[in-house]
Amino acid sequence: MFNLRWADEGGFPANDRGAAYGDGLFETIRMHGDRGVLLSRHLDRMVRDAGRLGIPVSLTELRKACTAATSRYSGRYTNQQADRGWVLKLTLTRGEGGRGYRPSPGIRPNLMVSAGPMPDAPIASGVAADFSRVPLTVNPLLAGIKSLNRLEQVMAAREIEGELFEVIMSDSAGNLVEGTRTNLLLKVPEGWATPPAKSLAVSGVLRQWVLERLRARGEVVAERAVSIGDVMGSRCQGLYLLNSVIGVVPVRRLAGQDLPADDGLATIFNPLELLE
Amino acid sequence: MFNLRWADEGGFPANDRGAAYGDGLFETIRMHGDRGVLLSRHLDRMVRDAGRLGIPVSLTELRKACTAATSRYSGRYTNQQADRGWVLKLTLTRGEGGRGYRPSPGIRPNLMVSAGPMPDAPIASGVAADFSRVPLTVNPLLAGIKSLNRLEQVMAAREIEGELFEVIMSDSAGNLVEGTRTNLLLKVPEGWATPPAKSLAVSGVLRQWVLERLRARGEVVAERAVSIGDVMGSRCQGLYLLNSVIGVVPVRRLAGQDLPADDGLATIFNPLELLE
Repeated sequence: MFNLRWADEGGFPANDRGAAYGDGLFETIRMHGDRGVLLSRHLDRMVRDAGRLGIPVSLTELRKACTAATSRYSGRYTNQQADRGWVLKLTLTRGEGGRGYRPSPGIRPNLMVSAGPMPDAPIASGVAADFSRVPLTVNPLLAGIKSLNRLEQVMAAREIEGELFEVIMSDSAGNLVEGTRTNLLLKVPEGWATPPAKSLAVSGVLRQWVLERLRARGEVVAERAVSIGDVMGSRCQGLYLLNSVIGVVPVRRLAGQDLPADDGLATIFNPLELLE
Repeated sequence: MFNLRWADEGGFPANDRGAAYGDGLFETIRMHGDRGVLLSRHLDRMVRDAGRLGIPVSLTELRKACTAATSRYSGRYTNQQADRGWVLKLTLTRGEGGRGYRPSPGIRPNLMVSAGPMPDAPIASGVAADFSRVPLTVNPLLAGIKSLNRLEQVMAAREIEGELFEVIMSDSAGNLVEGTRTNLLLKVPEGWATPPAKSLAVSGVLRQWVLERLRARGEVVAERAVSIGDVMGSRCQGLYLLNSVIGVVPVRRLAGQDLPADDGLATIFNPLELLE
């Protein structure tokens, strides 16, 4: 059982391990009224990845917190922005105290629940992106977990200026891995390509949903290393950024070079059809 | 200018970027009364590394906060534990809000100031350690910074059980890099060896002080990769763990194997001589 905390009532305890060490994880969920886009996948991911970190939480208690959160917060956004929706954020930390990095046994996690407005929608016809100068490092033990250790993404996001919507981060081998807040999907002649889950800092729920949907349609999706040449070369038929709150975003211009745009993918994701 | 927050008065705001993303850094300083061990080095490191993260802070305002902190906290520990001292913790975060990972320009940092008792002193004759199963990954842009992204150290610290005092983490090449809360120093026939600063997750102030002190005595100190063979092989004449709060700690037993113990190093560090 966690301690449920409401962001509109107070903050994190001074000795919360989330604030001290990034010892926790979070989900941001696109909501419309009291329903959430891919809600089950978000909550399943939090339960699974909390388990990988050794933070005890059950799906049942998370669902209860979501229900309480929607009755508390949804009215604030639904009235003025019925179409756009709102964003529910769940931050689960291991709890308070411990002997330095070492957590005390049996401490109780904290769940901070907050709400915010939807971010501005990106230009539907496509956005501009660039390559980040911040290298991405992924610990194999923590790969894919949306943990509170996001300083690399913060440092990269500081490069997003002007017309840029996103910057794309690479690993030490020079492969493109992901944006600061988006996963990558590439259209190639033989189908689709995306960096493999084990290489990702954050393995997004929309990425997983899109991969399943494409495969269900019989399309070929390769989870493999994606190089700069794959994206900037002549075989690239389109690059998409995936984020479950923002949606599927085509990249029209990358590092000053125009990319071919294929609008086939953007239409398969309709958030209003994925409300639960 | 930061917002000064006292841990005994309240916690972090719910939207503090330290709690959200580990977007900040910290120092833990061994205090005796109102003086701190290697205090200037701690504050200099925080100013320098905050600059690397783009968090504005000046040495002058940090010093003022320390003075206020010692008048506030030192009496609580000095009376009952005059010899042991206390621990001052400074946590500097980038501040509140922003658009996701991307910080708003001009936000004001938060400095959380807390105090705690000294940890138990390790056995002076030497401690037991083991190799961690948690790999250490170091982003070159963030190397050495005592940032709030410490989930790897937390996961490794969960392996510290029973008689173990520390576990030692290795990089993907298999080289030993550091303990969860300590830097490594190895005595070898030709002098001393320690993993180079650019390979470190946290570059400790005591490590730097000890290296300078050894070199000032004319001893040879090599900053180079340290393998398991270097430590477990016949050329190892002693392994030390360095932490500015705990001190210089010889390792007597590593992964179940006895290590030679050399007590020459433990005597050069007398915290009471380094109070400022």
